[in-house]
Amino acid sequence: MKNYKPKNRLSAQAYIDGILKGDRVILSRAITVIESQLESDKNLAKEIIQGILPASGKSIRIGITGVPGVGKSTFIEAFGKHIISEGHQVAILSIDPSSQRSKGSILGDKTRMEELANREEAYIRPSASGDTLGGVANKTGETMLLCEAAGYDVILIETVGVGQSETAVHGMTDFFLLLMLAGAGDELQGIKKGIMEMADMVVINKADGENIKMSEMAKLQYQNALHIFPQSESGWTPVVSTASAIKNIGIETVWNEIKKFKKVVDENGYFEKNRNYQKIQWMYNNINEELKSLFYKSPHIVQHLSKLEKDILSSKISPVKASQKIIEEFKNSL
Amino acid sequence: MKNYKPKNRLSAQAYIDGILKGDRVILSRAITVIESQLESDKNLAKEIIQGILPASGKSIRIGITGVPGVGKSTFIEAFGKHIISEGHQVAILSIDPSSQRSKGSILGDKTRMEELANREEAYIRPSASGDTLGGVANKTGETMLLCEAAGYDVILIETVGVGQSETAVHGMTDFFLLLMLAGAGDELQGIKKGIMEMADMVVINKADGENIKMSEMAKLQYQNALHIFPQSESGWTPVVSTASAIKNIGIETVWNEIKKFKKVVDENGYFEKNRNYQKIQWMYNNINEELKSLFYKSPHIVQHLSKLEKDILSSKISPVKASQKIIEEFKNSL
Repeated sequence: MKNYKPKNRLSAQAYIDGILKGDRVILSRAITVIESQLESDKNLAKEIIQGILPASGKSIRIGITGVPGVGKSTFIEAFGKHIISEGHQVAILSIDPSSQRSKGSILGDKTRMEELANREEAYIRPSASGDTLGGVANKTGETMLLCEAAGYDVILIETVGVGQSETAVHGMTDFFLLLMLAGAGDELQGIKKGIMEMADMVVINKADGENIKMSEMAKLQYQNALHIFPQSESGWTPVVSTASAIKNIGIETVWNEIKKFKKVVDENGYFEKNRNYQKIQWMYNNINEELKSLFYKSPHIVQHLSKLEKDILSSKISPVKASQKIIEEFKNSL
Repeated sequence: MKNYKPKNRLSAQAYIDGILKGDRVILSRAITVIESQLESDKNLAKEIIQGILPASGKSIRIGITGVPGVGKSTFIEAFGKHIISEGHQVAILSIDPSSQRSKGSILGDKTRMEELANREEAYIRPSASGDTLGGVANKTGETMLLCEAAGYDVILIETVGVGQSETAVHGMTDFFLLLMLAGAGDELQGIKKGIMEMADMVVINKADGENIKMSEMAKLQYQNALHIFPQSESGWTPVVSTASAIKNIGIETVWNEIKKFKKVVDENGYFEKNRNYQKIQWMYNNINEELKSLFYKSPHIVQHLSKLEKDILSSKISPVKASQKIIEEFKNSL
């Protein structure tokens, strides 16, 4: 299958021109090339990215996370529409290595953001499928560059708040938004450790009707909790607010805070510093992933590792000695 | 210098026998071999560890961190004496890759724990020197095994709460203790993000005299903050207490909580599960470090990386393409 060469591919230049003109159809087809596992598409993908690279980057990139049930789709629908109403063009991407395209990813069901999906100024693209988080993150990152080159100046990257993908999203965005629910306790159990500390803003969603009081209490609680954390390098102090996406309450506040944030980090230089850091880090993350896969994909190594694990657990060999042994084997096998 | 062979080395078996008998002098000399950078010592070190391995592990390993000024040495002095009074033998190690032995590491100045240093039941060993955190952590981890084999059944591993070393300490201990001060704000700025979430217990130190009220308030604050975090896999809910190490107040409480913790994790099986996980993880961390150093120590690679960084920042090449390019170069250079 990998040698199958799709016939409906354009030239790299045609994709590049189309993207730079903001042609949504071409953009979608280019993203398909980026996401493709076909060998014949890999070089085409590289050429496309190379061509649009200088036109990318001119956006604010916002990561959004929260456990299933927190109302992410409804929030993004309301939030996206508000951003558009201020004259922006918004692209909505998602990272979710656990989903498979065919089964429908988080955003797969566009009917969940029906209005937004029908707006000219919005572009919604579900998660790429992939074996590894690194692979999916790469493709989402490159898709983001394409969207920027196509003129989308606000990028929302959505993820579910239950896994490692948050770190990946945090590593490719400027602002990290955590959606929560009041009545903490159980709901919170779903949020992984460390995610809270990445948040630039916490929004307590579903703050309507009988939930208002509890949401205001939760807001205070989170404010106190976030106060305990050390200040971020960005110079920005995380804020907590309440919202009801379904009633369109508190949505403007979120966008206003992001605008405030942008002003702060533009002025203190953190925005550019962090973007540069992220670009370089992207390369290093890839290098380290590639190195690991050189090692761990060797069948010989895999076999020996499972034996070494057993020997370590039965105290036959120390972990340090085990690692030295297998690294020697790896070097000799090259 | 690396070929210099020290004359005062014993046979591996002599070290092993001495350690298993609990001979402190032999233990110290064995740790010197472990920490040695001499080529001729490396095999000897491996043999010693191999020999004592089955006798290691029978301890509770406690990580202690806190920023400079929080009173760590005073706390450890009081805490160590209390543990000894209950019939235990305690070894105190430290991880601090930033310190150099010759300049005196955190614990270098034993006069800071004068009483403890003179007790038969306590063994204090300052941080090993080393270039990398990985290297220092390995040596501290192996030193820990030696101490356990020598009969120390409580291991305290100290670190300063300002760097990456906390993750290393967390990865080699059963219980993680964070020392804090009341009057939060500025003091807290020194504690790195994420450290708070690793804590099994937070102790507000220097809770005496005029500080008592503020410390009790801080305790409540931290209790609320920790409440917000998801429950740890250990089934243990982190506790917050106040203490005055210098007045020997609240020290017993800390030890009692650790005993409660041990009971919980022994009963639910987490203790053993986590120890096994840590052993295996130790090997994988080493492997990954070694792989990186194979790559990053190649002068050819280093040169190209700095060029690629520049090209990435000027949007001449994408981070993904840059990483692919250099991995190809690495493969061809092998």
